[in-house]
Amino acid sequence: MSYLIKDISIIPMTADDYIIEKGYLEIAGHEIRQVAEGQAPEGGYERIIDGTNLVALPGLVNAHTHAAMTLLRGYADDMPLMEWLEQKIWPLEAKLTGEDVYWGTMLAIVEMIRSGTTCFADMYFFMDKAAEAADRTGIRALLSRGLIGVGPDGEKALAESRELIRQWNKSDHGRVRFNLGPHAPYTCPPEYLRQVADLAGELGVGMHIHLAETASEAADSLSTYGLTPVAHLDSLGLFEHPVLAAHCVHLTEEDIEILARKGVRVAHNPESNMKLASGIAPVPRLLQAGVAVALGTDGASSNNNLDMMQEMHSCALLHKVNSMDPTVIPAYQALKMATVHGAQALGLADAIGTLEPGKKADLILVRVDGPHCIPRYDIIANLIYAGQASDVDTVIIDGRIIMHKRVIRTFDEEEVLERAKYTADQLITR
Amino acid sequence: MSYLIKDISIIPMTADDYIIEKGYLEIAGHEIRQVAEGQAPEGGYERIIDGTNLVALPGLVNAHTHAAMTLLRGYADDMPLMEWLEQKIWPLEAKLTGEDVYWGTMLAIVEMIRSGTTCFADMYFFMDKAAEAADRTGIRALLSRGLIGVGPDGEKALAESRELIRQWNKSDHGRVRFNLGPHAPYTCPPEYLRQVADLAGELGVGMHIHLAETASEAADSLSTYGLTPVAHLDSLGLFEHPVLAAHCVHLTEEDIEILARKGVRVAHNPESNMKLASGIAPVPRLLQAGVAVALGTDGASSNNNLDMMQEMHSCALLHKVNSMDPTVIPAYQALKMATVHGAQALGLADAIGTLEPGKKADLILVRVDGPHCIPRYDIIANLIYAGQASDVDTVIIDGRIIMHKRVIRTFDEEEVLERAKYTADQLITR
Repeated sequence: MSYLIKDISIIPMTADDYIIEKGYLEIAGHEIRQVAEGQAPEGGYERIIDGTNLVALPGLVNAHTHAAMTLLRGYADDMPLMEWLEQKIWPLEAKLTGEDVYWGTMLAIVEMIRSGTTCFADMYFFMDKAAEAADRTGIRALLSRGLIGVGPDGEKALAESRELIRQWNKSDHGRVRFNLGPHAPYTCPPEYLRQVADLAGELGVGMHIHLAETASEAADSLSTYGLTPVAHLDSLGLFEHPVLAAHCVHLTEEDIEILARKGVRVAHNPESNMKLASGIAPVPRLLQAGVAVALGTDGASSNNNLDMMQEMHSCALLHKVNSMDPTVIPAYQALKMATVHGAQALGLADAIGTLEPGKKADLILVRVDGPHCIPRYDIIANLIYAGQASDVDTVIIDGRIIMHKRVIRTFDEEEVLERAKYTADQLITR
Repeated sequence: MSYLIKDISIIPMTADDYIIEKGYLEIAGHEIRQVAEGQAPEGGYERIIDGTNLVALPGLVNAHTHAAMTLLRGYADDMPLMEWLEQKIWPLEAKLTGEDVYWGTMLAIVEMIRSGTTCFADMYFFMDKAAEAADRTGIRALLSRGLIGVGPDGEKALAESRELIRQWNKSDHGRVRFNLGPHAPYTCPPEYLRQVADLAGELGVGMHIHLAETASEAADSLSTYGLTPVAHLDSLGLFEHPVLAAHCVHLTEEDIEILARKGVRVAHNPESNMKLASGIAPVPRLLQAGVAVALGTDGASSNNNLDMMQEMHSCALLHKVNSMDPTVIPAYQALKMATVHGAQALGLADAIGTLEPGKKADLILVRVDGPHCIPRYDIIANLIYAGQASDVDTVIIDGRIIMHKRVIRTFDEEEVLERAKYTADQLITR
């Protein structure tokens, strides 16, 4: 099937601040065939979408989340971190079943699609169920089974990961894929991390890990290993493979150099770091050092939303005030983090992240005619500083129109919301 | 006219974390007649609104904005402060006409209504036009003509203010009222500020002023007067009258004591302070000292939206990370700032800010069934941490239904958006 999106503004993300004020996109099968200025050639399309009052941009990439944690949204907030985890989150997580994770992930995907996310990096458990949800809904995903390297479960989780990778990474171009998810340096002993890194090498996949999230993690690492969390992972050889490191809040200048030199990709989670009071990651410095810093929401229990439009906004504002410099993370940079860097972070830079012929057709059409987007002096500033999730009109993933005019077309949203409510009710009374 | 809102959850804001899970509201004329749990008594209503899947809460109060600056939204961003003001904002503002201010304010009111704001405190110029806009749309407003005390314009602006107050504050219960708007300590010489304070006393009105917004303002005040901006205003007698002080970012411990002792109300503008890199106001400390800290968006050129749902969210997150304490500004506190404290800040605590019999019927009905608000463990956390402007379904001001099912009913939104676009186009080519 080939179709046309005409009379639309386009932000291809191929050059800084470049906007096609009025142009068109041709989509053929799973791919973008054409991105151009002006009037589209006539005829030959199976479908034509009118882009008036819309802007097309690459789908947003949520580079770090725990999708099924939507089920824990609002269950416990505004608490000290360890009390929150030990008394609230972990006991409830211990009760989760595969069926719960399926509906929790489905709910997350609904929320992500409705706020313009076309691809996400997930780490959780019962990941066969998360993969099923991603597969069914049409969203793109890089999934990892969280690996806690303590006790016999460590080996079992590795075997599960190997099987999930065998099952889902068969084709080079699969929409749903797996990598390895060693949870964090403080939950995985050094020997286990070496084992994970070896498996990554053997299977040719990357790793997704939490890194340097809190000050106490950094301090503990120094006292246990005499190394920062980053230097510790480096010493274990993890960075010889592609690594997506979530958070990276507490870094030394040497850590930043290591991350840059080893091509480690960072998933910055400003709202989660703010809500949990973890700290503020040195994002301007990381970007300056050449690190690909992507954006993530983290799980819904520590955010409490999966809205990447808001995450771009919060990112752009937070680093300005933190640097006391209003020129830091300009609007285009925030958008780049959520698209171009997101694609890089997930190892998908060849496939997604920009709008160019030959790339996968992962794109969103966003309304730019709401009262909060008037006047239209600067579409990119309007998107980042005033845009809302509800401005996302159409979501296209892998060439397929998943949402159009704010209605999800590929599955029954109502069913998902009802089943997710039921699942959450069951979960807390279980 | 009397009408009923039935089968609705209610957050009256009368006691911490108090929620009526299912109840009803009766509205008679301009006022709330009843707020109660359970089933409404049958019959006798001219209209019944079904509140299923909605929560009723007091309308949000935007305690500091420059409404007509919507016309400058996205005109200049991500620039150093003085360059932004001197090269971009001020030259454009110099070209504004009364007609521009009318349509810019109308655009602002559309955006505010659509994001749940029922009352705003404004400071700008051509304020007869802003008052006309507020009057026409049905929103509640406390307006002030910005007073710059340098040159002959200072006297003229004072005379204008006196006339606006005479014209609009005739009744005790007017929906649109004026107070005095001395712009800032650094734009108004001491003698002028004394004059403004005297006029406030004479007319029985309060003042709205920018205060301690930037580090350089605080430093300049110390070097010029040997006093902090707060101590300087206190020494001039301003705080003997009701004062709404916007920003209050750079405060000493003594400043906080003065503000608390003198009952000065603070309008905190987290997103503007972040975007312009002004700094982070010591909000937890101010609240602890007993200061009524309300929330504002500031003008759309430094935010770039007028969305109080987002402002509550940003406020709750920012102070957690700034204090490195996740228990700071819990969700209910953020909501209280935008409602109860907002009402106090504008001197309207007797009339609005809570849902109680006898108060003005200024309330909003917000959808709580979106995917981002599932599950429903905690409605208040969902509102603050996951809620969106587009969840606001119905806006009632002074008993009048201004928006219902996201359609504005009291004026032609389409006309406003088109006229505002036209006005902005004219403005930048003028």
